[in-house]
Amino acid sequence: MTTTPTPIALGPAPDDLLVDAVVRGGGRVVDLADAEALVWAGDDTARFPAELPDSIRWVQLHSAGVEHWFDAGVIQRHPDVVWTSAAGAFAATVAEHAFTLLLAGVRALPEHLAATTWRQREFFDKVGTLRGARVAIVGAGGIGRAMIPMLTAVGATVVAVNRSGREVPGAAEVVTADRVDEVFGRVDHVVVAAPATADTRHLVGAPQLAKLGPRSWVINVARGPLVDTDAVVDALRDGRIGGVGLDVTDPEPLPDGHPLWALPNAIITPHDSNPPSVRSAAFADHVAENVRRFVGGDELAAQIDPAAGY
Amino acid sequence: MTTTPTPIALGPAPDDLLVDAVVRGGGRVVDLADAEALVWAGDDTARFPAELPDSIRWVQLHSAGVEHWFDAGVIQRHPDVVWTSAAGAFAATVAEHAFTLLLAGVRALPEHLAATTWRQREFFDKVGTLRGARVAIVGAGGIGRAMIPMLTAVGATVVAVNRSGREVPGAAEVVTADRVDEVFGRVDHVVVAAPATADTRHLVGAPQLAKLGPRSWVINVARGPLVDTDAVVDALRDGRIGGVGLDVTDPEPLPDGHPLWALPNAIITPHDSNPPSVRSAAFADHVAENVRRFVGGDELAAQIDPAAGY
Repeated sequence: MTTTPTPIALGPAPDDLLVDAVVRGGGRVVDLADAEALVWAGDDTARFPAELPDSIRWVQLHSAGVEHWFDAGVIQRHPDVVWTSAAGAFAATVAEHAFTLLLAGVRALPEHLAATTWRQREFFDKVGTLRGARVAIVGAGGIGRAMIPMLTAVGATVVAVNRSGREVPGAAEVVTADRVDEVFGRVDHVVVAAPATADTRHLVGAPQLAKLGPRSWVINVARGPLVDTDAVVDALRDGRIGGVGLDVTDPEPLPDGHPLWALPNAIITPHDSNPPSVRSAAFADHVAENVRRFVGGDELAAQIDPAAGY
Repeated sequence: MTTTPTPIALGPAPDDLLVDAVVRGGGRVVDLADAEALVWAGDDTARFPAELPDSIRWVQLHSAGVEHWFDAGVIQRHPDVVWTSAAGAFAATVAEHAFTLLLAGVRALPEHLAATTWRQREFFDKVGTLRGARVAIVGAGGIGRAMIPMLTAVGATVVAVNRSGREVPGAAEVVTADRVDEVFGRVDHVVVAAPATADTRHLVGAPQLAKLGPRSWVINVARGPLVDTDAVVDALRDGRIGGVGLDVTDPEPLPDGHPLWALPNAIITPHDSNPPSVRSAAFADHVAENVRRFVGGDELAAQIDPAAGY
């Protein structure tokens, strides 16, 4: 028996890596009008087709966070289509970035890099270790879960925070999201990797920062509004926390002259934890896997829940 | 049957953590004249006892590298005594430091920290990943071996270089030290964690650096003279390597005004990978374990080889 490769459209522009991924997964690339699925590798919601043919049963989007697709109403317009994000595809590289920011903070790299003279005794009191540290991962999705083996490898213990309280492999403890505030009082560091929703806005604000210690680092690789920027600036100025590592900011981009640029223990990376060079290969692998599942009638990875908004 | 705790002396100064460690291991603390072993928690070779009682069969030193004890002739003066270093005791924290320097380099943290404006597109080309990278660990002793699970957790592959060529758990490949030069041509990054001997001086020099690429990082957490500082400065100025992370330098301390302080992709940490706060607890654990072995007649950990010089 020969099977005809499943017809799949690509947009908004041709991309050899994705053509190859579709073929690897058991599909073939066709025009949108003839397709059963659409892989959309663009971020500009205005360029998305105003109407989809009735034959389209699945749309694969390009990013892990999809709130801008909800904001633009695109997903809501097509309730009969299964939507998938790229959640999980970039988990490993974003996790590596978050882990790097945390390690760099704990090992006092910002202050080391600012030094122009050998000040060993001074640094003896600044250099810490993740060995034996307790690290909260708020939002134990793909990124959070990908961090756990990294943190474990350097001897840290993980407290995972998720909505369900369901067990998270490798975490010493799981706390449900409604009890997240109490976690701040008994961990050394906090990594924010939760989706952006109304519930998670300012998840890290002044009350939560007040529960951390002067050597605690807060890392955000999710979305800027999960952290209250003004509260962070205040805490850093007063030395009430050790520092922050932010790959996402609020506002974003962080404007020139913003106090965070000048605060010594704020490591700002301009939303580049998942740069295109690394991203393209990871997204292609994700597409190949989802095409394979679509062709085989299996459940797709990273399905978007229109009711939940992510 | 009751056993008398083995008599062990401590020097140069009293230390509650070490008294506790001796007792934990099955010993008791006595004066040097009555002791069978000496735990010496000092770095100043001139303060070491000029003569040891005949009853002393073992001396435990305080540092992982012991070349200064050889240089001072202390070890050679007592050929009938078993000498142990603290090699391995600090392996995990030094490995964490080396790993942090490498990750920080690959993720372009020095350039991020110097930035005061959002330059996402520019950084997209600078941020790399250790996922899929090949990392040479030159000197697969305690520190090198402790790094392997960390590197593996972020998806890197390890090429271990040791004298014997003996298998190293977790390394994809082991190369003998006499073939170290060829390794530079086929790895992405190099971590130096080898002992300082006449053979390892300038192990990383101009010819080796020339085999690396413009995104390669070289990390040294062993001893300064293993890396040719002038060759590193030249390579950095020409952009022939990505950067260096040096916890040890040559000369050390690195003098004020040295070009390495000003080169953007040189991360200098003033030999603080194993700060006293972290070190004391780790050394006490090492002492307790070696006392336990001494009491039980087992082979001691981290024995110094007087012929090899480390």
